[in-house]
Parts: sequence; C-alpha cells; structure tokens
Amino acid sequence: MNTLRNVDLIIEARWIIPVEPANTTLEHHAVVIDKGLIADLLPIHKSHECYTATEIVELPEHVLLPGLINAHTHAAMSLLRGIADDLPLTPWLQDAIWPMEQKLVSSQFVYDGTSLAAAEMLCGGITCASDMYFFPDDAARAFSDAGMRAALGITIIDFPSNYATTADDYLHKGLQARENWKENPLINFALAPHAPYTVSNQSFERIATLAEELDTGIHIHIHETTQEIRGSLAQHGVRPLARLDGLGLIGPNSQLVHAVYLTECEQQLIAARNCSVIHNPTSNMKLASGIAPVNSMLAQGINVALGTDGAASNNRLDIFQEMRHAALLAKVTSGDASALPAHQVIRMATLNGAQSLGLQEQIGSIQHGKEADLCAVSLGSPQNTPCYDPASHLVYVAGRESVTDVWVQGKPRVRTGSLLHASNKELLSISRLWQNATKR
Amino acid sequence: MNTLRNVDLIIEARWIIPVEPANTTLEHHAVVIDKGLIADLLPIHKSHECYTATEIVELPEHVLLPGLINAHTHAAMSLLRGIADDLPLTPWLQDAIWPMEQKLVSSQFVYDGTSLAAAEMLCGGITCASDMYFFPDDAARAFSDAGMRAALGITIIDFPSNYATTADDYLHKGLQARENWKENPLINFALAPHAPYTVSNQSFERIATLAEELDTGIHIHIHETTQEIRGSLAQHGVRPLARLDGLGLIGPNSQLVHAVYLTECEQQLIAARNCSVIHNPTSNMKLASGIAPVNSMLAQGINVALGTDGAASNNRLDIFQEMRHAALLAKVTSGDASALPAHQVIRMATLNGAQSLGLQEQIGSIQHGKEADLCAVSLGSPQNTPCYDPASHLVYVAGRESVTDVWVQGKPRVRTGSLLHASNKELLSISRLWQNATKR
Repeated sequence: MNTLRNVDLIIEARWIIPVEPANTTLEHHAVVIDKGLIADLLPIHKSHECYTATEIVELPEHVLLPGLINAHTHAAMSLLRGIADDLPLTPWLQDAIWPMEQKLVSSQFVYDGTSLAAAEMLCGGITCASDMYFFPDDAARAFSDAGMRAALGITIIDFPSNYATTADDYLHKGLQARENWKENPLINFALAPHAPYTVSNQSFERIATLAEELDTGIHIHIHETTQEIRGSLAQHGVRPLARLDGLGLIGPNSQLVHAVYLTECEQQLIAARNCSVIHNPTSNMKLASGIAPVNSMLAQGINVALGTDGAASNNRLDIFQEMRHAALLAKVTSGDASALPAHQVIRMATLNGAQSLGLQEQIGSIQHGKEADLCAVSLGSPQNTPCYDPASHLVYVAGRESVTDVWVQGKPRVRTGSLLHASNKELLSISRLWQNATKR
Repeated sequence: MNTLRNVDLIIEARWIIPVEPANTTLEHHAVVIDKGLIADLLPIHKSHECYTATEIVELPEHVLLPGLINAHTHAAMSLLRGIADDLPLTPWLQDAIWPMEQKLVSSQFVYDGTSLAAAEMLCGGITCASDMYFFPDDAARAFSDAGMRAALGITIIDFPSNYATTADDYLHKGLQARENWKENPLINFALAPHAPYTVSNQSFERIATLAEELDTGIHIHIHETTQEIRGSLAQHGVRPLARLDGLGLIGPNSQLVHAVYLTECEQQLIAARNCSVIHNPTSNMKLASGIAPVNSMLAQGINVALGTDGAASNNRLDIFQEMRHAALLAKVTSGDASALPAHQVIRMATLNGAQSLGLQEQIGSIQHGKEADLCAVSLGSPQNTPCYDPASHLVYVAGRESVTDVWVQGKPRVRTGSLLHASNKELLSISRLWQNATKR
C-alpha cells in the first residue's frame, strides 16, 4: 500500500496553463502546494494516488494560470482615476495631475491609494506589481497588508515634491525604505529614476553605481513620446537610450518602461544588453503616445512584459485588458492576424514580467519549486461559452470579471470572486475620503 | 392641491446621460416612463411633485443612459466564439469558419446562436442589434423571444449556403421573413448584400430598386481590407465604393460596415450622400484589417456608429469594449489625447447607431416621446471609484460587468445583473450542445 504524502493544498482545475513549457494547456490537472511552494503538477486522478491535503479546491470550469504580473504602475494614483480624461498630454500633466499631486500626496495618500490599487489588482488576478511613486515605504506597507507581492521603485527625480527635495533626498529615503523591508520575502525594491528628462547625468551615474553594488533593478520611463526624444537631442545631442547607455544604465537589470519609439539599432542594443521592456498599450493609446514595436522587439528576442501604468492614464489596473490590447495592436500594426498569439501574450503577462523583475526563479510559471502565486478564471458563464481554446478565451473573451480565486505564496487572497483581506465598504470609504479632499 | 399623474415606472438615478442634448450629465434626475415611452426627464425632487408610479426604481450609485446599439453583428456566430483565433484572415475564413458553417448552420443553429447572443448583449446593456446572417426569420424569433430590439439583415450573396441557393432565393426568403414580422414593433429588416466581392452587379441593381420601393436600409461590408479593394480594381476597374455608387447603392439609407480604407474623396462622397458608417474597431484589429479613419470621418460630419461584428472575430459582443477601443484608437492614430472624447463615443454607441438604422425618432437618447430603451451601470464598486466624471468612467473604467439593469420599451430585461427571460442553465445547455456538434 502506498503512503500518501500530506500537503497543505491541492487545486484541481479543468484547465491549467503553466506557461512553461510554452504553448501548453493541460486538462484535468492538479497543482499540489505545500509551504507556499508548488510541490507537483500532475493529472487529477494521479494526485489522488499520491497526495492528501488539508484543503482541496475544485475548479471544474476554470483555467488556472500563474498570477498575473503588472510590471509597471503608479499604484497610489488609483485615487486620481479618471480625474482629467480626454486632455492632451501637457495640460493633463501640468494643469491637472501635478497640481493635484502637490495638493494631496502624503504618506497617508500613498498608503490609501496603494491599498485601493492592491485590492483592484488582486481581484483581477494580479499577484505582483512593480510600482513607481512617492513614499515607497508606505506603498510597501499597503502591498504587505494586502498580502500581495510587489517591487517598489525608489523614485529619483530632480524636482522637489511633497515626499523629498533633491535627488539625494529621494535616494536616501528610498534606500531607508528598502532597509526597512529587507526581511519581507514579498517586498522587493528597484532604483527608479523617473525619466531621462527629469534626472541629471550626475544622478544617473550614481544610480548606475548603486544598482551594481546592491544588485537591484533599474526601472525607468524611456522613449515614451517623440517630444522626449526631441528634447534629448536638443539638450544632450543624443537620443535618451544612447545617453543612458553612455551612463551605464542599460544592462540586464534595466526595465525600460514604454519604449514606444525605438529604431532597429536601438532594439538591437536592448536585445544585446538583455534589458526588459515594459509595454503599456492602453496608457500609450490613451495619452496618444504611440504604439510600441512589440512584434519586432519579440523577434529580436527582447523580454517584453506588460504594465497598466497608473489609473490616471488607463484607467483600469487590469492586466487582462493589457493582454488583449497588446495582442490586438500587434495584429493590426503588422497586418497579420496570427501575430502575438494567445499563449505568447499570456507569457508576457506572467513569466516575462517575472523576468523583468529578476524573479523568474520564484514566480511567473506553474513549475515545481516555484512559489504558488496563482489565479483562477471561470469560463463557465454564458458569455464565456462555447470555449474551443481556453488560452485564446483568456485573451479575447474573459476579463478580470471572470477571476474567481487568487493565491499568493499558496495563501488565498480572493475566493469565489471576493477579496478576503478588506471589505468593499472599507475600500469605498477610502476613495470617498480622497475624492472629497480633491475638492477642498 | 396638485393632482399627481400616475405612470408605469419612474427610474431615479445618481447620474443620467441623455445623449441629447450633447455633452450633458444630469445629477439626481428621474426618467418617467409610461406605456413604454419616456414621458418626462426631470430632477428627482420635482418628479415627486408631479408623478406617482406603479414602480419606482432607485439607482443611487448608477449612470442611466440610452440602451446601447450594436450596429453590426452576426449574432448566431456566438456559437463559433473563438473557434479559430490567431489565424490570418484567409485560412480563418476558408479553412475554419466556412467549413464549420457548412457543417452546422440551420434554422435551429441560428435560433440558438442568436438566443445566446441576445442574452450576452442584453446583459451588457445592448438593447438593439443590427444582425447579418442566414435564416433571418429564426434570428428574429430569437430576438423577439428575448424581448430585444433588432434590425435583421436580409442577407444576399451569390453563393449557395445551407440557407439558400441563389441571390434570388436569399432575397425571396428574406422578404418573406420581413413579411412575417411586419406587425412586430421591435423587429425591423434591412437589405444586406454581403460585400462587393460576393454580390454581382445584377443583384446590386435589384437591391437598389427594392430598397427604394420598400424604404429599407442597405447594410453591407465594404472597404474592410486592402485585398478587397485590389480585387475590385482588378475585376471592375474601380474601387468598391465607386462601383456601388454607380449602381445606386450609396444613399442616406446605406450602412457601410467597416470602411477601414477610405480616401479623402470617398469620405466626402459618404458625407454628401448622408450614409452611415459602422465602425468595428475590435474586429478590425483582431483580423488585422486596419484602423478606420474615424476622426476624419467625424470631422466630415459622417454619422459613425459602433458594431462588434460576430463573436468569431471579436470575441465579445460588448459595446463598452467597442467604445473604449474606438476612443483609444482615435487618440493614438491622431497623436491627440483629446480626440474622440467620452461623450462623443457614447453618442456613437447610442444615437448614431439609431440614426444608422433609421430609428433616431424612436431610440438612441433619453428624450420625451422616445421609447424607453435604457441601460443602468453601477459605478459603486471599489474598482470604479473614485469617480470624477461618469461619462469618461463609462468609456475607460466601467465595463459591461457593471451593467445592472436594462429595459426595452420600458419592460425590464435585466434586473440587478440578472437576465430575466432565460436562465444561465438554459443558455449553457445551448452552447454545450453546439460545441459538441462541431466535433461530430
């Protein structure tokens, strides 16, 4: 007689998309989870022969996939969701967003806004976010309280804000926050110089040195608009990417956010340096920035991940929407309906996101030994049926409204569509409070 | 003492977007409905002074707007939702869709598929659809049974199908269906020659004459792909629009579906002839057809409405998604983030749709004397808050998952998110049946 191994949790699903191996949809498989880690992935009937579990979750009409990774956001800006829509970029920033941030941004604003964003993301199947904003210590606290994984950007910008005064001050406070959270396995930090047009060469050089010393990522907005590139040519005589490469910032830890405008040569450079690009298709459309050359970047072998950007320029923190928009834009810009197929875009939203954050050994796929960050999507409602291919259904049919269950490190965060750690009432009182504050 | 007028229904909403007058969001207003018609629109407190009602519906955190109009779909293709995704257009049609249609399409397939589609559309706030498919009599029956408004296309195509053999046969059967439904106020018919490349000059001439005699719309796919235009130049020596104009098909009743490729002159012609264009942004992206010049068409004064196309090429029958995609594409293609603002795109999804179908006197706005086709969207969930502008929230934040209540002619079809006329169980058994049939 076999001895059954007892584990914490078994999730039995109609379909599982493990992401690695690529282009695979398993049917009637089970993920076995113990101590927060994925212990096995095998057919359901075999799991009964090998394991018993403290808890068994049955998902008879669901796809189970790795938790989605939002590789670029400004989480606390959820409190400014849609505050200045349908405006051109410059008045949007200068007349609406910046004055409002000057009026409101504080430690409490960041904790509250990040809490609201974390709730929205978890409910939409996102288990990890890469965040760039002010007061990263408070953002980390909000993500930690929500039980969500996060990479916090240590924002560095050569302009004073309610948070810090000089580039040195930003860096000092950010490094202190990093120190505060170093024992928390869910919370990571990266250096986040805001953009080429807001950070000096001197600051960039310091960041390059520090990133090497601390072995952290470098998260930066780059080549988002033609205006940015024209400005750099006028001021520095080179395009932003070339300037940053000269300063030592373009390497395997670099997370190049937006990268809408890239020449062939620049793509070759990014590929050669093993950088990641974070594609934010919805924000790039809504702010009329442009459409990033994703097909071409993928063909060059560049690791392309997906981000939502902040809720003031999107206005949903919804990686299902970003998957759909990435796939649709790749098709229409190439004139090829087979461009960026479903499995590939799911990989961008999971394993590529993990790789961009240097977390590819821990998360991003359903494989033995990885942490159990998982998301379940029901395809059982009439508008999700019939279903001929669960992978393409995730991209073109189902949305975040079909997410039912979410786990981080094997711990449930969303069950049957309900967030476990906070009530709608609490979240609504947060957004009401800050909406009122905008009017004062 | 005032005498209160007794009416059937009063809907009291936090916000109302009546669409006409344009760019208007009313707060704390009530729509008064009697005998299926909109009898009044006034502040809630005044409604209490003037009316009593058999039923009062309170929508304290909702936007009430006209029912959305899906101005182009192939409803029964919901049964082929996602059956052949990520394929180039020609193999998609020739190797997947057409053989499957040959295998399956029947009177029952169309009734069942249209029923599934009608349920999906009603739950997503769509109260009227313009449909082009086979067996229009059965499609009409499905829409009627669902209590939804529809304009049925009398499809005419010079190819035999399971439904009809010759152009004459299609026309004859379609006109018979029109006759069968002439007493039903929710069911309209239009002549629907499939496309320039599938209908002969002789058939087009007959259609032009008939459309004038019967005063019906002409609904046609046109200028969807560059291939279509090249084919027309090779075969007829002119582009499809010029050919159809020569045959008398381009007039105020014409509904030009897709219109992705249009020269400046062609847009001027369409504007001068008072045609409508039906923009299907998601389908045009997914099939890699291209991006229609919507900003330029609107600037020319062309009436542009929105359509989902069929579920095999979208794969959601979701006008909220089409609004979002229309707005985002208009911005990114123009480089202007203020292009196609929220109120304008909501108008495209409502009043412009009504006008394309010749129903602008009956539906498409919340105005005295119009029929009470209405849709309520809750903005009360955490991911829909804060809300600074309900109009832009409808386009960029909320989706069909936030639709709670839908009325057609003042009759409730969806209440607090639940479809009233059919159960999920019934709908799922339909899709299961036909999914199994694809495998036989």
